[in-house]
Amino acid sequence: MIDGSILIGARDVRSATSFAAVDPSSGATIDPPFANADADHVAEAATLADAAFGTFADSDPETRASFLESIADNIMAIGDDLIVRAMAESGLPRGRLENERGRTTGQLRLFADVVRAGEWADVTIDLALPERQPAPRADIRRRHVGLGPVAVFGASNFPLAFSVAGGDTASAFAAGCPVIVKGHPAHPGTGELVARAIRKAVADAGLPEGVFSYLPGVTNELGAALVADPRVRAVGFTGSRGGGLALMRIAAGRAEPIPVYAEMSSINPVLLFPAALSRRAAALGAGYVQSLTLGAGQFCTNPGLVIAVAGPDLDAFVAAAAEALVASPAHQMLTPGIHASFEKGVDELESHAAVTTVARGCVGEGVNQARGAIFRTTGSAFLGDAALSHEVFGSSSIVVEVADMAEAATVIAGLEGQLTATLHLDEEDHASAAALIPLIERKVGRILANGWPTGVEVSHAMVHGGPYPATSDGRTTSVGALAIERFLRPVCYQDLPDSLLPAPARATNPWDIPQKIRGA
Amino acid sequence: MIDGSILIGARDVRSATSFAAVDPSSGATIDPPFANADADHVAEAATLADAAFGTFADSDPETRASFLESIADNIMAIGDDLIVRAMAESGLPRGRLENERGRTTGQLRLFADVVRAGEWADVTIDLALPERQPAPRADIRRRHVGLGPVAVFGASNFPLAFSVAGGDTASAFAAGCPVIVKGHPAHPGTGELVARAIRKAVADAGLPEGVFSYLPGVTNELGAALVADPRVRAVGFTGSRGGGLALMRIAAGRAEPIPVYAEMSSINPVLLFPAALSRRAAALGAGYVQSLTLGAGQFCTNPGLVIAVAGPDLDAFVAAAAEALVASPAHQMLTPGIHASFEKGVDELESHAAVTTVARGCVGEGVNQARGAIFRTTGSAFLGDAALSHEVFGSSSIVVEVADMAEAATVIAGLEGQLTATLHLDEEDHASAAALIPLIERKVGRILANGWPTGVEVSHAMVHGGPYPATSDGRTTSVGALAIERFLRPVCYQDLPDSLLPAPARATNPWDIPQKIRGA
Repeated sequence: MIDGSILIGARDVRSATSFAAVDPSSGATIDPPFANADADHVAEAATLADAAFGTFADSDPETRASFLESIADNIMAIGDDLIVRAMAESGLPRGRLENERGRTTGQLRLFADVVRAGEWADVTIDLALPERQPAPRADIRRRHVGLGPVAVFGASNFPLAFSVAGGDTASAFAAGCPVIVKGHPAHPGTGELVARAIRKAVADAGLPEGVFSYLPGVTNELGAALVADPRVRAVGFTGSRGGGLALMRIAAGRAEPIPVYAEMSSINPVLLFPAALSRRAAALGAGYVQSLTLGAGQFCTNPGLVIAVAGPDLDAFVAAAAEALVASPAHQMLTPGIHASFEKGVDELESHAAVTTVARGCVGEGVNQARGAIFRTTGSAFLGDAALSHEVFGSSSIVVEVADMAEAATVIAGLEGQLTATLHLDEEDHASAAALIPLIERKVGRILANGWPTGVEVSHAMVHGGPYPATSDGRTTSVGALAIERFLRPVCYQDLPDSLLPAPARATNPWDIPQKIRGA
Repeated sequence: MIDGSILIGARDVRSATSFAAVDPSSGATIDPPFANADADHVAEAATLADAAFGTFADSDPETRASFLESIADNIMAIGDDLIVRAMAESGLPRGRLENERGRTTGQLRLFADVVRAGEWADVTIDLALPERQPAPRADIRRRHVGLGPVAVFGASNFPLAFSVAGGDTASAFAAGCPVIVKGHPAHPGTGELVARAIRKAVADAGLPEGVFSYLPGVTNELGAALVADPRVRAVGFTGSRGGGLALMRIAAGRAEPIPVYAEMSSINPVLLFPAALSRRAAALGAGYVQSLTLGAGQFCTNPGLVIAVAGPDLDAFVAAAAEALVASPAHQMLTPGIHASFEKGVDELESHAAVTTVARGCVGEGVNQARGAIFRTTGSAFLGDAALSHEVFGSSSIVVEVADMAEAATVIAGLEGQLTATLHLDEEDHASAAALIPLIERKVGRILANGWPTGVEVSHAMVHGGPYPATSDGRTTSVGALAIERFLRPVCYQDLPDSLLPAPARATNPWDIPQKIRGA
């Protein structure tokens, strides 16, 4: 079922060069060799996607919703082969990947519901007012329609939920946009299995083959060609800040710039308010380490920063966290490259003059194993060196002790944009939290209380986004129903004969979706 | 009432240098001299705006709606002084400016309605599911909130409706964003009168002074400093392509990039379908010239391109248009610079080897008078020289005769993004129109039938936008209710105590706005 092909529409394509999948737990390569897509494959896929766009964009909601559900069904139909392959390529454990598969199919089904509900089309109608003085009003109707073909760059850390059939792909399909996936080289076999599941759904729905293509590859040129292709109209990306910024530059430099939705970098500050900290320092310390080490810390929402007022309560929290971390087993990381970056980031913090190492996790026995790391510094040291606020992807986190809540506010004010901020607080803390929340709100996409930021619910109200550089575009989310809006644009129709209107805007409302009608 | 000040919050500020308003009908300067704002004034205004943001963003809908209505009232209260001053500075006639004032106040009142209706906040609530298996769901609530201070660059061609209190300002205020206007130097006195009307509304509403500042000036450095200021979070611009692109580059090059909503360049293709053309060539020719010469052609939606199949019907259309144009009086243009650009653009078309001059309007008697111009060329010539599709701002338009509707499609496919496309068609034309509309839809923000693109309704369904380079961001509109979305971002709250939630997301719904609640 995995043969290493590039999937361009309905065709399996080979290439002159190939690359290998690697098992990060052993460093060994896994068969088969994978084709290495290049700019010519991009052009072919983009031509097909462009040709497919019109049909797909105007497909009725039921067609599109069924198509999304069919992808979910086809992913489940792969069965355990998918889980086994993903385990081998990612080093992630079975339970985590089974959960992630559930999240992926749940996400596809959520978007099926969103498509059927039809609010995404935002159909708005100003009826004609022929008698209006001093001038009559025309009949004006607006609907949202897909932007065009979308390039999706999957993430290494979610081989299913943020990859080939992940949130970017699901929301772009929901918006009626063909998708070209640049497959992540860390899990090419997993990617191909899912890509074939999507392709089968395209064919079964009778949609044009160009609705989906899959381009595995290891070169930067592949991604650059994809973002530069004039037929590509938007980009979804989850990955490193360097990678996201590179794509933003390419997109902004095109003859016709396009939006890039890049989810890039976040250290997800956690604030421990005094009353909560004094009441449950030990429990918070244990919970923190659990969130920090989950999935080897390889989450965008990993709690990389804790802020609290110095004192015995914070000391108790740190002691509990240290106790939990030293007992925490080493975790397999996703790739040798990610492991090397983690080690480098941790080494820099360990040797930083203003930073104390609180604790490290257990030493692992295999290769590419991460030992968790908790550091401690002061507010003034943290404010004095921007390097201390850089993300170290993995289970590394820094506790910043501040003199008082005013210094906490200064630390927060100095932060870049973040995906999340977490508040641990009790009733007595509400007044000081209320004073900080307006500041926090300007920095993050999600504020959560008395929980941990890892574990992002895929729901209608979720925002997994945030101001730059958490994402390239803080007006959006990459998780949850609202993600569909990234791939839509409004078009309006003035006095068009009903038969020439797109279906959602017609008086007869053949799609039976909400139409906001004014002037009746 | 006009003293040439910079308005920074509540303060009137002078500058070391000054500039003069010019009456384009005489070239004479008009008193008083105007202060020339610089980067220091930008910093002061941005500091105030940043400080005002929190209060303004969370002001309740009634406060914000009343504020918008109060601006409209204050503009009307200026009385005829505003119209007289705008006539002197713009050369536009009284009737046009009175209409534009009505449009401006109507736009402010539309956004007051939009703010009160509360859909902009898009409050979405996923209620907690504590019993859910395998894991409970938290309470997750989302709302939209303003981006932060917005820089607005007014347009020369609408001294009221697209200027100091125009659509960008109204929609940014509606979103809860403080506004800093970079005043257009072509109408500084008009701008100051309106700026004072806004400032009075800020004070009367008890809002922080930083909600509004007004920076008149003539230097590019002023605009550049405004877009580069780290406290400015978005930009609204209406003007030339060169100007818009320059602001886009500055915004993209910031340490933290921000969105620029620039409405820049459009030639607004008009398609004459065969049956309609054969039935009413003469009436279409006359209507075309009326739309073309309206306001001296100084509209973004001016019909700069006509596409039709060659033959006697098109000849009849062209003859009728020529007859109307030669009888059309010269029109005062807005500024000497705009007039010079118009003359240059028309000269280039007149001397172009592949272009015929169909007709010119009457010669004017004063300075800066525009003679309308209609040109004719073939589809292949038009396709062969991109310069023929460049906008000539003013009453200049080119008729492209094509061999058949297939060549019309080729011409359309070769166009850049546009604000509008107009179809003149009868029942017999519907089939060929239906074949073209999907292509047209990808190129424009508004498609209209059997009318003319000038005269943009300010309504709920209007889209005054379109793919690049018609605008910098084809996902938006600068006119109509949807314009508010440009200045909003989503934030979500997970398990926050109700008292710490922003008002629109609270269970008690104190703003009494729509809340989409799921999971109940």
